[in-house]
Amino acid sequence: MKRVAISGIGVEIPAAVISNEELVASFNEWVDTENARLHCTGAEPLQHSNDEFIVHASGVKKRHVLQPDGILDPARMAPRIASRPDDELSVMAEFGVASARKALADAGIAAADVDMVICSASHQQRPYPAMSIEIQKELGTSGAAFDMSLGCSSAAAGLHVAFNLVRSGAQKRVMVVTPEIITGHLNFRDRQTHFIFGDASTAVIVEPLEDGDERPGRFEIVDTRTWTQFSNNIRSNFGFLSRLSQEDTTFLAMEGNMIKQVGNKVFKEVTVAGHRFIVEFLAEHGHTPQDIRRFWLHQANSRMNAMILKLSFGHEVGHDRAPMVLDRLGNTAAAGAIIALEENHRDMKPGDYGLVCAFGAGYSIGGALLRMM
Amino acid sequence: MKRVAISGIGVEIPAAVISNEELVASFNEWVDTENARLHCTGAEPLQHSNDEFIVHASGVKKRHVLQPDGILDPARMAPRIASRPDDELSVMAEFGVASARKALADAGIAAADVDMVICSASHQQRPYPAMSIEIQKELGTSGAAFDMSLGCSSAAAGLHVAFNLVRSGAQKRVMVVTPEIITGHLNFRDRQTHFIFGDASTAVIVEPLEDGDERPGRFEIVDTRTWTQFSNNIRSNFGFLSRLSQEDTTFLAMEGNMIKQVGNKVFKEVTVAGHRFIVEFLAEHGHTPQDIRRFWLHQANSRMNAMILKLSFGHEVGHDRAPMVLDRLGNTAAAGAIIALEENHRDMKPGDYGLVCAFGAGYSIGGALLRMM
Repeated sequence: MKRVAISGIGVEIPAAVISNEELVASFNEWVDTENARLHCTGAEPLQHSNDEFIVHASGVKKRHVLQPDGILDPARMAPRIASRPDDELSVMAEFGVASARKALADAGIAAADVDMVICSASHQQRPYPAMSIEIQKELGTSGAAFDMSLGCSSAAAGLHVAFNLVRSGAQKRVMVVTPEIITGHLNFRDRQTHFIFGDASTAVIVEPLEDGDERPGRFEIVDTRTWTQFSNNIRSNFGFLSRLSQEDTTFLAMEGNMIKQVGNKVFKEVTVAGHRFIVEFLAEHGHTPQDIRRFWLHQANSRMNAMILKLSFGHEVGHDRAPMVLDRLGNTAAAGAIIALEENHRDMKPGDYGLVCAFGAGYSIGGALLRMM
Repeated sequence: MKRVAISGIGVEIPAAVISNEELVASFNEWVDTENARLHCTGAEPLQHSNDEFIVHASGVKKRHVLQPDGILDPARMAPRIASRPDDELSVMAEFGVASARKALADAGIAAADVDMVICSASHQQRPYPAMSIEIQKELGTSGAAFDMSLGCSSAAAGLHVAFNLVRSGAQKRVMVVTPEIITGHLNFRDRQTHFIFGDASTAVIVEPLEDGDERPGRFEIVDTRTWTQFSNNIRSNFGFLSRLSQEDTTFLAMEGNMIKQVGNKVFKEVTVAGHRFIVEFLAEHGHTPQDIRRFWLHQANSRMNAMILKLSFGHEVGHDRAPMVLDRLGNTAAAGAIIALEENHRDMKPGDYGLVCAFGAGYSIGGALLRMM
C-alpha cells in the first residue's frame, strides 16, 4: 500500500461578521415582540439573552456568516439567500470552490491532477446532481466525485475515506471539500442554539507520498479512524419526507425541523467518548497524548475541548497544544478542526505528530494522526 | 492489499403494488379537475396519460411502493408517510434495516461482525444523526457509519468506497445499505416522471477474502470504478436552503423542488457515457463485453439498457445476459442494479465474470467487476 500525504489545505472564511452584541440585540427585540403577543395568551414569557451567557455557555464571541442580510432582522431572523437558476453555480458549490482553489494553490497542483472530489459536510444543499460534481465541474478536476455526510465529523470521515482510496491506489488525488453554511439551517429564534454556529468552508487534498519525496512543512497521514454511536441529542429532521407528514410546511413550521441540541447531554457524553477515542487511537499507534505536539479538535465548545484534553492528559493543557478558533468564528461544524489545522501547523518541526479530532452529531468522531515531514 | 469478496446481499421490496392503470386513472382524474380550473384562465389544458405511453417511454408496467396510501388520491398524489417521534426508528432506517438483516442472513454473520455501515442512497431522510448510524444502532453493528450519496449510482459508489476500505485493511466488514423511498420525492402530477419510480432497499456486505477461503456461489470483487460529469438534466433543488429563498414553502410550492428530468437528453448522453465506461473499465482488466457472463445494469429504462449493450457488444443482447427488473419494480434508483444482481446470479459458474453498472443523476456512473468463486 502507498504512503499518503496531505498536500494542500484551503480555508474560506466569509467576510461578514456578527458579534454577540448584535445577535443579542436582534434576539431580544424579537423576544419583546413575541412576549407582547404571548402576554394575551397567558403563556410563559420568553427570556432575553446576553453576551455573558453566550460566552460562558460556548466561548463564542463572534461568527462569520456567508449572508448577514436577514439574520438580524427581528421580523425574519434567517439569512436572505436567494435561489439561483439551475445554470448558475449554486451557493454551496461556490463556497466549496473558494476553499478548494486555495487548497489547489497550497498544493501547487492543477485541478485536473485531482481525480476525486468528496463533498463531505453536515448539510448538503440538494440531493442531485451531487454538490461534489458541481464543484468538480467548476474546478475542472478529473475522474469522479460523490457527497458524504457525518455531522460535524464530516471532514474527518472524508479524510478517512480519502486516505484509504489513495493508499489502495484506487484514486490518484482526492480532495475533501467541506462547505458549511450552518446559518442556513439555524433557528435564530432559539435561545439555546442561535449563537453557536458560523459559516466556513475547507478543502484538504490527499495524495500518495513516494519514498524520498517528503516535502518539509507537509503532513504524512499515519492513520485515520472513525467511531459512531446513535444519539438524538443533536438532531435535524428536515428532509424530503418532511412535506409528507406536515399539513403546514410554511416558513415558520419548517423551523421545527432545524438544528436542535440537548447541550448538557452532548457535553457530558461527547467529552467522555472523545477522550476515549483519542487515548485508544493513539495507543494503537504506540503513542500517548503527551507524544502529540498539537491537537486540532472540533470547535464547538471551549470548555468541552478543555475537558477532553484534561481527561486525556491527566492535567490541563494550553491553547498552544490545542488551538481554538471558536471564539472568533463560532462552531463552523465539520470545517472547524480543519481551520484549526490550517492556521496552526507552520511552527511544527519535522517528526512532530498532530491529531485532527472532530466530534459531533451522530454521535460521531473522526480522527487523523498526522506526522510533520 | 487484501482480496475482497461480497459475502451477502439483501433486498427488501415493499408489498404494495401500483399498476400503470391505477396510476393513469388517478392522474387523469386530477388532470380533468385541473383542466376544469385552467379552462377559466385560458391556459393550455393538460394532457391525459395512458399505459401505452408509459410502457413505450420506460418499460415500466407496475411498481412497488412503501406507502400506497395517498398516492392515488387525486386530491393529494403523494404518499401519506407520518412523521415519527425521535425515539422511534425512522422510516428510511427501518427500510434499510429490512434489507440489511437479509444481507446478514445471506452472509451468515452476526451484526457485530460488521464494523462499518454506509447508508448510500439518492436521498437521505435527514442530515443528522446520519441514517447509517441509526441503522448501525438498530442492527447492533460495531465500529462506525456514515452517509453518502451519488444519485442512482449511490450503491455502486458505496461499493467503490467499501471495496477500498476493506482491501486497505481499514475496516473488517463494510455494509452498504441503500434504502430508496423515491415515491416520497416524486411529483405524481408530472406526466413525464410520475410513473418512473418505485421503492426498494438493498444491502451488500463486503469483506476480506483470504486465499483458500473462496466460497462457491460468492463473488470476488475484482475492481470498482466511478465516473461523474455535471449535468442538470436530472435535478432536485430541494434542501435546507430552499426555505430561505421562497416566500411560499407550502405543500404545492415545494413540488417545484422535486425530481425533474429531461428524459430525452438523459437517454442520449447517459447511453453514450455508459457504453464508454463499460468498454474502458473492462479493457483496463483485459476484458471485452463478450467475456462478461452477466451485466446488472441500472434499472431506469429498458430501451436505454438495450442501447448501451448494443453499443458495447456491437449487436443486440438478450435479457439472460442483462436481466431487467424494471418492468415489475419501476426505477428503484440506486437499488435497481443490486436487485438485478441479487435475483440473477445463482446460475453462474465458477470463474464467470459479472459487471454491476449503475448510472444516473450527476451524471454519475459506478461499476464493480465481479468474479464468481
